[in-house]
Amino acid sequence: MKYVILVSHGTFAHGLKSAVLMMSGQRDDILSTSLEEGMGTNDFAENFAKLVEPITHDDEILLFSDILSGSPFTTSIEVLNQKNLFDKTTVFAGMNMPMVLTAVLMKDNLEKPDLIEATLSEGKLGVTLFEINAVNFEEEEL
Amino acid sequence: MKYVILVSHGTFAHGLKSAVLMMSGQRDDILSTSLEEGMGTNDFAENFAKLVEPITHDDEILLFSDILSGSPFTTSIEVLNQKNLFDKTTVFAGMNMPMVLTAVLMKDNLEKPDLIEATLSEGKLGVTLFEINAVNFEEEEL
Repeated sequence: MKYVILVSHGTFAHGLKSAVLMMSGQRDDILSTSLEEGMGTNDFAENFAKLVEPITHDDEILLFSDILSGSPFTTSIEVLNQKNLFDKTTVFAGMNMPMVLTAVLMKDNLEKPDLIEATLSEGKLGVTLFEINAVNFEEEEL
Repeated sequence: MKYVILVSHGTFAHGLKSAVLMMSGQRDDILSTSLEEGMGTNDFAENFAKLVEPITHDDEILLFSDILSGSPFTTSIEVLNQKNLFDKTTVFAGMNMPMVLTAVLMKDNLEKPDLIEATLSEGKLGVTLFEINAVNFEEEEL
């Protein structure tokens, strides 16, 4: 199975998972764990190790992190490396909704290079400024 | 005051707020509200209206949404328009950690065009693929 795993500071990873599930419908291939306020890195590592326990070398992992650094990012990679799962893992950072949703919806239909390209492309395209003429807003909305 | 407001499906907005606060330290200019599973758009609109109640036309708003469409995005904009606050609002979509953190940390130091540019640029740059030679991973980490 191809798993999508979200990791972050705070409760961001759980929150993004909940938002993606509202779009994609309930599914069991999206996992999340977070380094919450006051938690130590060891606790995070333990939680992450438990989360990936059912994953074997026959599976693949798409790991998404909040930022390209920080304890959740580095600790997740360390645990995956210890479990010899890192070579089955594709790691993304700067996760947002378009990026993760694309990965979730496309992962079983695209080859890895195309999936990576689509995921990065939708993530970057999703980062946008929305501009509208405020005066005409009500008219345009009708 | 310049407010950063996060809106989303699920609990994404609250989660991203909690992650940003872990980086920026506690502050009261970041607000969040979410359209959670089972909630109606009217409930979201009410919650959003309560959230922005203290904000006046002397303030400015940087609104971040999970995606460029959907109820949280459109409803937030409608409420801000009804409250005559839309002309004081800059709207971003595809929110991620680098994007929101940049806005939070730079909003009081940059003029609006530069802030918009920095926010979009950091958001897009943050969307990345992380590649490392797994064989050398442990050595590189030491």
